[in-house]
Amino acid sequence: MLLNITHKTITKVNSEGSENTEDLVAVEEPMEIQLVFYQYGVVTEKQVSITMRTPGNDFELAAGFLFSEGVISQPQDILSIAYCRKALADGNKNVVKVLLKEHSVVDLKTINRHFYINGSCGVCGKSSIEALSVKSSYSIDFDLKINKQILLLLMPQMQHMQVTFKHTGGIHACALFDKEGNIILVKEDVGRHNALDKLIGAYVNRNELPLKGHILLLSGRISFELVQKSTMAGIPIIAGAGAPSSLAIETAEEAGITLIGFLKENSLNIYTHPQRISLD
Amino acid sequence: MLLNITHKTITKVNSEGSENTEDLVAVEEPMEIQLVFYQYGVVTEKQVSITMRTPGNDFELAAGFLFSEGVISQPQDILSIAYCRKALADGNKNVVKVLLKEHSVVDLKTINRHFYINGSCGVCGKSSIEALSVKSSYSIDFDLKINKQILLLLMPQMQHMQVTFKHTGGIHACALFDKEGNIILVKEDVGRHNALDKLIGAYVNRNELPLKGHILLLSGRISFELVQKSTMAGIPIIAGAGAPSSLAIETAEEAGITLIGFLKENSLNIYTHPQRISLD
Repeated sequence: MLLNITHKTITKVNSEGSENTEDLVAVEEPMEIQLVFYQYGVVTEKQVSITMRTPGNDFELAAGFLFSEGVISQPQDILSIAYCRKALADGNKNVVKVLLKEHSVVDLKTINRHFYINGSCGVCGKSSIEALSVKSSYSIDFDLKINKQILLLLMPQMQHMQVTFKHTGGIHACALFDKEGNIILVKEDVGRHNALDKLIGAYVNRNELPLKGHILLLSGRISFELVQKSTMAGIPIIAGAGAPSSLAIETAEEAGITLIGFLKENSLNIYTHPQRISLD
Repeated sequence: MLLNITHKTITKVNSEGSENTEDLVAVEEPMEIQLVFYQYGVVTEKQVSITMRTPGNDFELAAGFLFSEGVISQPQDILSIAYCRKALADGNKNVVKVLLKEHSVVDLKTINRHFYINGSCGVCGKSSIEALSVKSSYSIDFDLKINKQILLLLMPQMQHMQVTFKHTGGIHACALFDKEGNIILVKEDVGRHNALDKLIGAYVNRNELPLKGHILLLSGRISFELVQKSTMAGIPIIAGAGAPSSLAIETAEEAGITLIGFLKENSLNIYTHPQRISLD
């Protein structure tokens, strides 16, 4: 049995009648990220986030979250990642501790854009993007050019590898492809931002960022948050099955990312930087 | 033109070729909620949250968020809701101030379950539900009973009223129905939790909670967060087009809510408390 699927007894109802049956559902559990770092020469421990996620790839999720949210600025700042021993002793794998190297720069202000209690007037008088974007240390790969045919073949490849979705019908996915359209990595999660953090985190943990020359595929709608995270990882092309929001489009435009929505078997919409897609 | 839709120039590509065209997309903008309340007899102002939302029904969103997250415990604690005047002077409707009456009880700890920086080990040694749930002041309506035929007719009614979705194909919705299956209210937002907060907030602002004898319909997957918010509003039946997560099912089970997923024209799955649905 997969870690991220569980059994539930349900009543299936259709026009002919009903039956009680076993069903498979995607697991959703909280995960807390605790950051251990040096502050003024003293080892400091802070709880950075609690996210509802599907268990699995927890260390990638933690690394990807910290990097894509700008809490840490370079992958090599991470010394080690482990489950909290105290929680683990209770059989609980929901607390992940990330130890940073000495002299790492930690920016906890950046996570304020999600949810915060302290601070001064955040959104007043600033444009949305100004107030919310975190600057990426990578520039976006301007020379990449791919043919539209490559894009049209991405979705079936990802669907083939969405193992948890096949069983439950209820989980998001994202996948990374090279510029020839070969699939490299797929991650699934009940939260679409977590799936992307797990994917980016895999590259943070191997110190293989930026993702120059790659294409990101998303299973659903494209929000600001997903584009912002992709910017941090230096991804030049984002394609999604659903619609992008206005702010997702504006963020991609400004970052120099090619944004593609409503990607289907025979059609797609290009929202920004169409020069990367050759239409022959 | 609707407030929550904007125009973008895009390149539409299909197997025949491509064309540049105007497209409609759903607006996503940040909204900040500032709470003004008495603390130890002194007027205190705190930024409580920043959420990415589709503009429109902002005061319902603010009221619904504060109530469904347990920051305020009763609708009548709200004295008034208005846009921040300073931000408004810059043409910015993204900051909403909520004034509470004197002697209102404010619980900012509850929003820690989303995202926090301070505090002690949150998830260690506790069950997920224990750590994350906020207690509702309403009990769930145990006597409600409806026929499955009523459920099968909900989705087309909501779809008919999803105005922004019709134009953009990229926005979530939720709707409230009475026990005869008549549609009462529909709310749309790029964030599914915002759509539900807008719906609940409409009833908070009219002081018409709990939503006894009502059915909630969700356009997508059913997460823990959506069930938790519904619990706070006292909603006895939740139906969704997509799959529920494991924690959504467990939360509904514990709260006494009937949870229905994969609601289609001719079929549905009942995950919890099937006694409310008559299958004749």
